[in-house]
Amino acid sequence: MSKEKPSIPKGTRDFGPAVVVRRNYIFSVIRRTFEKFGYLPLETPAMEQLSVLTGKYGDEGDQLIFKILNSGDFLAKTNHSDIEQGHKHLTSKITEKALRYDLTVPFARYVVMNRNDITFPFKRYQIQPVWRADRPQKGRYREFYQCDADVVGTDSLLCEAEIVQMVNEVLTTIGLTDFTIKINHRGILAGIAEAIGEKGREGDICVAIDKLDKIGQEGVRKELLERGISEEAVTKLEPLYTLEGSNKAILEQLQTILGETAEGQRGLKDLYDVWRYLSRLNSSALTAQNESGNPRLMLDVTLARGLSYYTGCIFEVKVNNVSMGSISGGGRYDNLTGMFGLQGVSGVGFSFGVDRIYDVIEELQLFPESSQVGTKALIVQFDKESEEYALPVLQRLRDEGIASELYPEPAKLKKQMGYADQKNIPYVILIGSEEMASGKLKLRNMELGEQQDVTVDEIISLLK
Amino acid sequence: MSKEKPSIPKGTRDFGPAVVVRRNYIFSVIRRTFEKFGYLPLETPAMEQLSVLTGKYGDEGDQLIFKILNSGDFLAKTNHSDIEQGHKHLTSKITEKALRYDLTVPFARYVVMNRNDITFPFKRYQIQPVWRADRPQKGRYREFYQCDADVVGTDSLLCEAEIVQMVNEVLTTIGLTDFTIKINHRGILAGIAEAIGEKGREGDICVAIDKLDKIGQEGVRKELLERGISEEAVTKLEPLYTLEGSNKAILEQLQTILGETAEGQRGLKDLYDVWRYLSRLNSSALTAQNESGNPRLMLDVTLARGLSYYTGCIFEVKVNNVSMGSISGGGRYDNLTGMFGLQGVSGVGFSFGVDRIYDVIEELQLFPESSQVGTKALIVQFDKESEEYALPVLQRLRDEGIASELYPEPAKLKKQMGYADQKNIPYVILIGSEEMASGKLKLRNMELGEQQDVTVDEIISLLK
Repeated sequence: MSKEKPSIPKGTRDFGPAVVVRRNYIFSVIRRTFEKFGYLPLETPAMEQLSVLTGKYGDEGDQLIFKILNSGDFLAKTNHSDIEQGHKHLTSKITEKALRYDLTVPFARYVVMNRNDITFPFKRYQIQPVWRADRPQKGRYREFYQCDADVVGTDSLLCEAEIVQMVNEVLTTIGLTDFTIKINHRGILAGIAEAIGEKGREGDICVAIDKLDKIGQEGVRKELLERGISEEAVTKLEPLYTLEGSNKAILEQLQTILGETAEGQRGLKDLYDVWRYLSRLNSSALTAQNESGNPRLMLDVTLARGLSYYTGCIFEVKVNNVSMGSISGGGRYDNLTGMFGLQGVSGVGFSFGVDRIYDVIEELQLFPESSQVGTKALIVQFDKESEEYALPVLQRLRDEGIASELYPEPAKLKKQMGYADQKNIPYVILIGSEEMASGKLKLRNMELGEQQDVTVDEIISLLK
Repeated sequence: MSKEKPSIPKGTRDFGPAVVVRRNYIFSVIRRTFEKFGYLPLETPAMEQLSVLTGKYGDEGDQLIFKILNSGDFLAKTNHSDIEQGHKHLTSKITEKALRYDLTVPFARYVVMNRNDITFPFKRYQIQPVWRADRPQKGRYREFYQCDADVVGTDSLLCEAEIVQMVNEVLTTIGLTDFTIKINHRGILAGIAEAIGEKGREGDICVAIDKLDKIGQEGVRKELLERGISEEAVTKLEPLYTLEGSNKAILEQLQTILGETAEGQRGLKDLYDVWRYLSRLNSSALTAQNESGNPRLMLDVTLARGLSYYTGCIFEVKVNNVSMGSISGGGRYDNLTGMFGLQGVSGVGFSFGVDRIYDVIEELQLFPESSQVGTKALIVQFDKESEEYALPVLQRLRDEGIASELYPEPAKLKKQMGYADQKNIPYVILIGSEEMASGKLKLRNMELGEQQDVTVDEIISLLK
């Protein structure tokens, strides 16, 4: 047995009780909202076949997949040549399974495997950890939770509108008020490419303008030119970065610029539809304003999102006035299950970043008191006699559903009070000889530091 | 991109919505009970350092640990000799991390790493998956959940009594009535070994009598003799397999047999203490009887439990009249953290087997209706006009907290009703031109097949 100081792998975390309870609060708000909108939970295994994951995240992604060594004599089926061909080749010989990298590919895999049993449209949510062999840094972990909701098997824009509604509901429920839901459409981006004379080049344009926040307009110009977009096109593009006015005003300007392109038309029609749904649903995403006076839902033609599989509306959500990247994002894809041979299943989905939401809630001190569940009352143990008296009291409290503990041994009072303190237990019950004689126990409110003499019945009605 | 038919690794499972919801019901009963007794949640990473896990589960266990291949060029630091020495040696060169094999070792690792911040006694529960490269078979998976509760830093027998209470509460809450909580003590087993003239041989005796259920008295006799226990000792031992009478009667018989041995004394004293606590707590584990007329809590001197680290009370729980192994078990250990160099931390813990509990509940049809959460009402969509009318209705239902959906497109009625059916949605709302004119919508109870014409307000009060 190793006696060395134990540690955990870099980029991973233990979550102690106080943190788990707060994370569960966030998960429960998200879960309740998903379910209110008709999404049902799915759970897939941590391990997937390596072949299911490989090739879905680009070359760079493939490198970041954690592979699981075959059990037993994994070298049995290899030969010298396998080893001489280097680690990439050898990997395919000694590993068959890998840890899930995201929740989207396992979802697509599940849909394809169960296509005959699933009723479409299929609305599922999934809240599970994923693993990436990324270099750990502040806010980036090798194990982290994703919270995804997707619906596949319908192209109704009601789904997009409901995603806006769900984001809005989750964030307002946890107490956020100053946030922006950015929306754009791949058709708008394709229409722009066509309108500036670079039809079909929206891929390069997206990659470049996705960096607008980070490298600024000059940086984007440089990158666009490097990617072979003409100077004339870039010059035509730039005014679009700073389109001003209400969403309606921007939509009208876009109508003028892109109205002639088929892709632009498609994007505009979809966006108008989303707006129509939200307005009919009387959504506060349309009426609420953030602190800078802009509407909560904002059309942003510079929103591109990296993932290549998006084909329709795309979303990204930022909390304003905190230094934090986007906390949610998603979009429509027309062919997610195509990677496993099932064509023509359109879907739309989005994801919450729980670690970032946690940090924002903590920074803004929005965790509710009620998210600190735990023991409500600790009964102090003085001696065997007080223990004997306390046991039925303990049982009565628990019978009433009150989480409670009897300190398990007659330790020093200071130690027992310290225990209550450390565990944030709000009430302590003290039972000395006087209390046993009178039947009135000392109930101490730990926050106020006040004590009162009360019967067990009174304690129960106070704590329930 | 692979177009092959996708699959999941053998021994792993996808959990679709209906199953997740039922599993979550079990988890929530367990979680609520743990918290009522003052246990708080801990979560540890799926990956642990390989060195933390190796050597903790015996040679056989080590083989069953899933190892994670180092990322990048994992061969860079190896040479020809590493490869020629075979897979066991090479494993240590190309893997540093592994998947958690149980929740006990990560818990011990957490306690040691955080010893200075933890207030003892430390009561934690942990509900997370574990992974084992076992050969999959019926009821045995390579990924499965464990639900553990442990308290470390006290040797009070109140903790043992509370474990009996928690098992009792969880199982009765999910509706089980005919189950047996078996209890024994390592001191009793050591005392027996001494009393039959084989002092110190309780390890071999435990391994053998642990198989009593499987191989019968003759099989155990053969194994005991093979393990070098004398024939005379085995003959003395056998009457103990069939001790009869109440727990009290058995304790009294044991007092006669083991009273002279120090270990036997220790075991008896602890068991008497557990009984004293339970009786003072008025526990139904003492008073309730199972269908065969035996008490729910039964002292069973043949209960041995395999794990070598137990030193005091041991537990095992079986549901009667179903063909299923034990659904819960645990015990006291005096030196769990010793494996990481922290001595003298006594603790006691137990674990629920969720997969087995699930199967039992399903077999006995004890899943409550309320465990089938999901969409409460589906609004059928006939055409754009009914959609327009339906949207504010949908929003009102959701504002009232009623999980509801509008079918996202005007599909055939049969298809939409099939969707409600498949998803077990109990109510369907139909809005035709007549309904729009009168404001009275058709509410269909899917189970009864009955329809009524009601206002939105009436729907809300019916569904809430």
